Amino acid sequence: MKHLLSVSDLGADGIRELLDLSDTFVEVSGRSIPKVPALRGKTLAWLFYEDSTRTRLSFETAAKRLSADTMNFGVSSSSVNKGESLRDTVETISAMGVDGIVVRHGSAGVPWQLTRWTDAAIINAGDGWHEHPTQALLDCYTLRQHFDSLEGRHIAIVGDIKHSRVARSDLAAFSLLGAEVTLVAPQTLLPPSLEGWPAKISHDLDAVLPTVDAVYLLRMQRERMAEALVPTLREYTAGYGLTLDRCRLLGDQTIVMHPGPMNRGVEIAPEVADLERSVVIEQVANGVAVRMAVLYLLLGSGVDLTEGTR
Amino acid sequence: MKHLLSVSDLGADGIRELLDLSDTFVEVSGRSIPKVPALRGKTLAWLFYEDSTRTRLSFETAAKRLSADTMNFGVSSSSVNKGESLRDTVETISAMGVDGIVVRHGSAGVPWQLTRWTDAAIINAGDGWHEHPTQALLDCYTLRQHFDSLEGRHIAIVGDIKHSRVARSDLAAFSLLGAEVTLVAPQTLLPPSLEGWPAKISHDLDAVLPTVDAVYLLRMQRERMAEALVPTLREYTAGYGLTLDRCRLLGDQTIVMHPGPMNRGVEIAPEVADLERSVVIEQVANGVAVRMAVLYLLLGSGVDLTEGTR
Amino acid sequence: MKHLLSVSDLGADGIRELLDLSDTFVEVSGRSIPKVPALRGKTLAWLFYEDSTRTRLSFETAAKRLSADTMNFGVSSSSVNKGESLRDTVETISAMGVDGIVVRHGSAGVPWQLTRWTDAAIINAGDGWHEHPTQALLDCYTLRQHFDSLEGRHIAIVGDIKHSRVARSDLAAFSLLGAEVTLVAPQTLLPPSLEGWPAKISHDLDAVLPTVDAVYLLRMQRERMAEALVPTLREYTAGYGLTLDRCRLLGDQTIVMHPGPMNRGVEIAPEVADLERSVVIEQVANGVAVRMAVLYLLLGSGVDLTEGTR
Repeated sequence: MKHLLSVSDLGADGIRELLDLSDTFVEVSGRSIPKVPALRGKTLAWLFYEDSTRTRLSFETAAKRLSADTMNFGVSSSSVNKGESLRDTVETISAMGVDGIVVRHGSAGVPWQLTRWTDAAIINAGDGWHEHPTQALLDCYTLRQHFDSLEGRHIAIVGDIKHSRVARSDLAAFSLLGAEVTLVAPQTLLPPSLEGWPAKISHDLDAVLPTVDAVYLLRMQRERMAEALVPTLREYTAGYGLTLDRCRLLGDQTIVMHPGPMNRGVEIAPEVADLERSVVIEQVANGVAVRMAVLYLLLGSGVDLTEGTR
Repeated sequence: MKHLLSVSDLGADGIRELLDLSDTFVEVSGRSIPKVPALRGKTLAWLFYEDSTRTRLSFETAAKRLSADTMNFGVSSSSVNKGESLRDTVETISAMGVDGIVVRHGSAGVPWQLTRWTDAAIINAGDGWHEHPTQALLDCYTLRQHFDSLEGRHIAIVGDIKHSRVARSDLAAFSLLGAEVTLVAPQTLLPPSLEGWPAKISHDLDAVLPTVDAVYLLRMQRERMAEALVPTLREYTAGYGLTLDRCRLLGDQTIVMHPGPMNRGVEIAPEVADLERSVVIEQVANGVAVRMAVLYLLLGSGVDLTEGTR
Repeated sequence: MKHLLSVSDLGADGIRELLDLSDTFVEVSGRSIPKVPALRGKTLAWLFYEDSTRTRLSFETAAKRLSADTMNFGVSSSSVNKGESLRDTVETISAMGVDGIVVRHGSAGVPWQLTRWTDAAIINAGDGWHEHPTQALLDCYTLRQHFDSLEGRHIAIVGDIKHSRVARSDLAAFSLLGAEVTLVAPQTLLPPSLEGWPAKISHDLDAVLPTVDAVYLLRMQRERMAEALVPTLREYTAGYGLTLDRCRLLGDQTIVMHPGPMNRGVEIAPEVADLERSVVIEQVANGVAVRMAVLYLLLGSGVDLTEGTR
C-alpha cells in the first residue's frame, strides 16, 4: 500500500491488519515518553484546503510520536491565493522533499489526482462529501474495542448522510467488517440515489434505536437550514436528535458515537454526550493511534517499535 | 502544585521558590546549546482565545528549551468557530494526550473551569481582567535582579488598572513579597471598588515618582477613548504618561517597567523606553526563564538540569 | 559574513563559495535521513510582514534539516497589530534568544535597519522591490547545474522588472558571475531610470529568444492591470508571455526559469511550464539546499557535515 485514499482500497483484510497494528500504537501512546523513532528523518506536509483543527492536530500528534518532521502548508496565506494551480502547489511541496502529504479538499477525488503529480504518499483526510478513511478506521477501532468484532453488529448512522464523507467511509468500512448498517435521515438529507449502498434506510429513529449496537450521530450543519433542507434545527432535533428520552430505547450495551465537533442540543442532547455510553472521547484518543498506524504503514521502514526514543 | 492559576495560590514561599528555580533556567538559556531534556516526551497545548504573539512565543521558546512537544490549537480556525463548547474542545485536546494546557481567554475564571475537565496541568496565560500569573512572576524576577529583595520597596503601577490582569497579578505578587504598591490612575481607569486591595491610590503621578523604586507602566488601549474613559490619548499622556521631563523626578536607581507591547508616545515617551533604567527587554528575556521554571515545576520529573541535551 | 542582506555584499567569490557549499547540502538532502546536527540548539525566527508560503517553507525545511529550532512570529496576529514599532518587535524577539531572523518586509532597506537593533544574524527574504538574495543564489545554483558556469552565458529576464526584487537580485548575481543579461519588458514595467544597471534592454521578446541560454520569466501580478501598467493580461501575454510558439525560437539547450508561483496562461503557457526545458521544480529543490548553505555559513560552528544525526 502506497497511499490511503479510501477504505475500500484496503479491503476487509487491510482494515483488520491496520486495526491490529493500531494496538501497538495505543500501547506506545500510553508510555511515559510516548515516542518511537519510526519516522525519524521523514517529512509530512499538511495540505488543508478546508479548516480542520481536530483532524490536523490528531495527525500532527501522530507524526510527532513517530518522530517525523512536519510542514504546514497553510492554504489561507499561501500561493494558492495567488492563483497557483493545485498541481504546481503539490509539485512545489514535493520538490522541497516530503515523504507524505495529508490532504483535505472540498472536492471529491483530489487525493487521487495528487498521486499522479508526486511520488509522496498521499493520505486522504477528507475530500468533499466523498471519503474520510482515517475517521472510518478510528471508528472501526472504537467499535472493536467495545464489541471485539463488527461481524453481525447493527449500527445506525443518523443525520445528514447526503453531505457526509464520514457517513460514506463509515458505511463502507462497517459493511466490509460484516456489520449491518441502517441510515436514518429525512429524505432531504439522503443522496438522490442509494442504489448499491449496502444499507437499509429509515426515517423513524425511534423504531431503529432498540435494534442497534451503536448509534453514530452526524454533525448537523447550520447551513442546511439556509438551504431549506430542514425547516428548523428544533424540528430536526425533534425528529432525529438523540435526546435523553430516546436513549431509554437503547440496549444496555449500545454505544453512542460522533465524529466531533458536537453541536450539543442539536443532533445530541448535552446530557447524552456525557453519558458513559457516549464514546466520543475514546474516538478522539483512538484517532491518534490509528493515524500513527497509517503513517507507519505507509512510510515506516521496519523500525523496531518496542524501543522508544532516547 | 498541579496548576498555575493565580499568584495567590503560590503564596510568598511558592513565589520565592519559583524565582530561585528560574536562576537555573537563566543559566541554561545562556549555554551555547540552551536545551535540557527535562520535558522530553511531554506535550503542551496552547489554547489561546485571544491573540498574543509575545506570550505564546515566550512559552513556546520555554517549551522547546525543555525539549517538550507542542500543539497549537489555533482558535480562529478551529472547531470553536463551528460552535463547539469550551468543554468539548478541552476534552478533545486532552484525549489526544497532552500533559499541560496553556490557556488565554477573555473571561475571568476559565482556567479554573478547565481543571475540572482534564487531568492536564493548566497554566493561566491571562483570563479576562483577572490574572496573568507568569507575567507577575517574571516581573518579580526582574525586580529581584535589581533590588535583591522586594521587601520594603515602593512600586507605582500606572495606567489602566481597571482592565488590567497584569495590574491585579502584579499587585498580589509584589505585596506577597513585601513591597508597597501605589496605583496611579484617573478615577475612570480604577475599578469601582478597591476594598481589600493592598495598595494606596493616587491621581498625581508627579507626587508619586520621587518616592518609588520602580514605575510599572501599563499599556494604554486605544479602545478606552472610544469608551469615553479618557478624553484623548494626548490628555492621558499629559497626566499619566512617563515623559522625559517626568523621569527627572525619579531616583537614580529607579527602574521603568512595562509588560509590552509598548505604545511609544502614549504611556511611555520614545526616549524613556530607550533609557538605561528601562528594563523592558530584561523582562522579556526573564520571561522565558521564568516560564521554563513554571513548566518544569508542573511537569518535570526530577531530570538532572545540569546536563544538556545531546 | 554575519548577515545576508544583498547578493552584492557577497561578491563573485562569496557567491561561488556559497554555491560550492550548497553541493554538500544537496547531498545531505538526498540521504535517507536528510538531517545534520549543524545548527542544534540554534533558534531561527521568521518575521514575515508579507505572506510567503513558498519561501517560508523552504527556509523552514532548511532549518529542520540543520536541526535548528524555529519560532514563527506571525505578523497578522501579533503585537504589530497593536501598534508596536518594528524596533520593539525585533528587540523582543531578540531578547527571547534567537540566533537568526529571516525577514520579509514590504519596504526596501528594512533588513539593514534590523542589523542595528539586534545581535542576531539577519537574512533578507525579500524587502520591497529591492532584494531577494536567496532567490538569486538558488537561481545561480540552478544555472550552474545546467551550464557549469555562468561566464559568457546570455540570460533574458522577462516581465515586470520595475516591481521585482527577484529581477534586481538576479541581475546583480548573474552579472557578478559573468553572464550577460537582457531585460525584456514593456516600457511601463521598467524602472524610470536604468542608469548603471548592467543589462541590455529590449521590448522585443521574439528577437531576444534565439540568443539566450536561459529565459527567466517573472510573475505577472494582476494588480498591474488595475494600475493601468498593462492594458489587459491577454495583451501582456501576446507580447511577453512564453507561449509554445515562442518556445520554437529557443535553442535546444535553453532552459526556462520562474521564481513561482506561476500564473499559467499569463507569463507562461501551461504546456511550456511542463516542458523538459522548464526547470522550475529544480529551482524549488535547490532552494532548500542553498538556504541550508546560507544558514550554515551564518550560524554554523564547524560541525562535521559528513555525519548525519542519530
